[in-house]
Amino acid sequence: MTSVRDRFVLPDGTVYLDGNSLGALPRGVAERVREVVEDQWGQQLISSWNAAGWIDLPRRVGAKIARLIGADADEVVVTDSTSVNLFKLIVAAARLRPDRRVILIEPSTFPTDAYMAASVARMLGLELRWCDPGDPLAAVDDDTAVLCLTHVDFRTGRLFDAATITRGVHDAGALMLWDLCHTAGAVPIDLRGIDADLAVGCSYKYLNGGPGAPAYCFVARRLQDTIDQPLSGWFGHAEPFTMARDYAPATGVARLQSGSPVIVSLAALDAALDAFDGVRPADLRAVSVSLTSLFIELVQARTDLEVVSPPVPEQRGSQVSLRHPQAYGVVQALIARGVVGDFRTPDLARFGFAPMYVRHVDVWDAVEHLVGVLQDREFDAPAYVNRAAVT
Amino acid sequence: MTSVRDRFVLPDGTVYLDGNSLGALPRGVAERVREVVEDQWGQQLISSWNAAGWIDLPRRVGAKIARLIGADADEVVVTDSTSVNLFKLIVAAARLRPDRRVILIEPSTFPTDAYMAASVARMLGLELRWCDPGDPLAAVDDDTAVLCLTHVDFRTGRLFDAATITRGVHDAGALMLWDLCHTAGAVPIDLRGIDADLAVGCSYKYLNGGPGAPAYCFVARRLQDTIDQPLSGWFGHAEPFTMARDYAPATGVARLQSGSPVIVSLAALDAALDAFDGVRPADLRAVSVSLTSLFIELVQARTDLEVVSPPVPEQRGSQVSLRHPQAYGVVQALIARGVVGDFRTPDLARFGFAPMYVRHVDVWDAVEHLVGVLQDREFDAPAYVNRAAVT
Repeated sequence: MTSVRDRFVLPDGTVYLDGNSLGALPRGVAERVREVVEDQWGQQLISSWNAAGWIDLPRRVGAKIARLIGADADEVVVTDSTSVNLFKLIVAAARLRPDRRVILIEPSTFPTDAYMAASVARMLGLELRWCDPGDPLAAVDDDTAVLCLTHVDFRTGRLFDAATITRGVHDAGALMLWDLCHTAGAVPIDLRGIDADLAVGCSYKYLNGGPGAPAYCFVARRLQDTIDQPLSGWFGHAEPFTMARDYAPATGVARLQSGSPVIVSLAALDAALDAFDGVRPADLRAVSVSLTSLFIELVQARTDLEVVSPPVPEQRGSQVSLRHPQAYGVVQALIARGVVGDFRTPDLARFGFAPMYVRHVDVWDAVEHLVGVLQDREFDAPAYVNRAAVT
Repeated sequence: MTSVRDRFVLPDGTVYLDGNSLGALPRGVAERVREVVEDQWGQQLISSWNAAGWIDLPRRVGAKIARLIGADADEVVVTDSTSVNLFKLIVAAARLRPDRRVILIEPSTFPTDAYMAASVARMLGLELRWCDPGDPLAAVDDDTAVLCLTHVDFRTGRLFDAATITRGVHDAGALMLWDLCHTAGAVPIDLRGIDADLAVGCSYKYLNGGPGAPAYCFVARRLQDTIDQPLSGWFGHAEPFTMARDYAPATGVARLQSGSPVIVSLAALDAALDAFDGVRPADLRAVSVSLTSLFIELVQARTDLEVVSPPVPEQRGSQVSLRHPQAYGVVQALIARGVVGDFRTPDLARFGFAPMYVRHVDVWDAVEHLVGVLQDREFDAPAYVNRAAVT
């Protein structure tokens, strides 16, 4: 029996714990991209929009992601970036609640989420209000149009209880927008089961779609006929090729599209998602919890570092963050030893455990190297001191 | 001496006159994409954002496009789609003219331009007004914030006088936004010479960047420090990796970025643009005019079809459109003969003459086949009748 790890290209001698930033390369991608570039674009040219199915790719790839987030196939479309999709869906949410004037977001969210919420508030004359990440529902009231939360915190790995929060938001008559960037592909979520409204996510982390791969939008089917998004480009039109002067939205989630889809990157994502064939999100979660729990256990047994991520698995995504005053140096020294995590300013060393390809032996080796870095104070190397991180 | 045509992969037996829809594949692209996927993503993983220069790719590729549109290297950035960039720049233009309340656009523009202008007008409470394509300046007055025009009309190939129109718009105190989708790579424009304000364009037509390749924004340097765009995502932030809660725009054209750049598609475009090394836009224009003039001459001599495109080369882009009541059938019958043009509803057969790889012999062969299609009424074939176009 082969492991799903065998579905990935992984460089020799590297323990890769940064799949929460850029997922590893699935084996089928290179050949698929070659086919799209050389055969479809190079030989079939314009006819590939229909003959090779480019035109439907945003919805077909969306359907593959849907399975991993508990959505129906026709509730997800791949398009644009997470940032751009946040703008679309926050505006759309505000339009669905025209009598309410507050966009709620929590201050530790990934920055682009807050930037987009602030931009929408400014454009629509609404108020951006910050909620307490420890109790987001406390701030939801009858003036709240939408609450925007990142399901898994990018710094700490803290996992929100999506079902309870969504229910509380609905009880207040508001809409819930989930950012699933650190969820899909590692942490299960049952969007239909929790009666979710709207969600966005990127595809280049645990979904392994490649650097900057296009993002996705989820819109619950019950909202699809009324949702009204502002980046109403021709690819979201009901009949793009009639070239009508006036906009008329496509039926269903297709109306979340805007410009022409980026086919080469989208095809890479399409092929990448095949790595999940036959893989159940619940099984991924079991592996993920086992990996992060072992990592925490070993770190606590062998170092005196503070574990910033929640100790209880139910409250944790698929990453573990450690605090150290010279976290940048710690991360760089680990990379020099072949253990790739990343640094988040000012003092976090962050390790992602992609359950598709990270093994328990990798966890053991990573901690072994971490102990070495700390014992020999390798983080003190001149090259690592007073350096700001660039990624 | 080799021809620049040798820099492209072109299928045998095809006369490709649809480079104004999807440009042909430049030879260096496949290997570059392989390198990005297999070596940079597959082996170097996250480190490639810096080590392979992914992080700067939007500006480096922008600089390559800049040369082809008469801009300086730091005035162009590659990001998102044309549709999304139109939204950014129309909002930004309105914010630069806060006392004016009209967005002007012409009704025969490419539809997505009008959809985006309408969306911005709605969000900002402005008025969308349609101008006469025959005299766009007539509608510009002291309530006009911005005039949005497509430099080359996608249906007819009609070319606006960019210098005169830009000057007239400035005389009225308004801003000018040019859509260069059918310009860059085939029709010269001197954005600095005409003192242009703002421009957008796609990269998958005459720039040959591949299907749905990311688009670009031009912002004149004199506007870069004040421009304020609404899709203010983290990649347009002054310091994205400080993860600051509040948005602060990057200096220069970089602030037009929003989410993570689509690296695989962007690298394909980067490699594609190398086909223009040593090629002067003025020389491309000379070839283009020669090709379109010959096509018109032969069509008029050998058929009775109406030539919809302007007869005067100075008023024409790099395409020629012909009218026929069964234009869909004409185009399909030509494709069956290996001559690829496209159909634009309701009655136009459109032929693009990409000067980088279309030859005079192709023009001759295309007209020869067109004569055959018309003589034998091949457009009457049952498969072609009562069929709507899909691309």
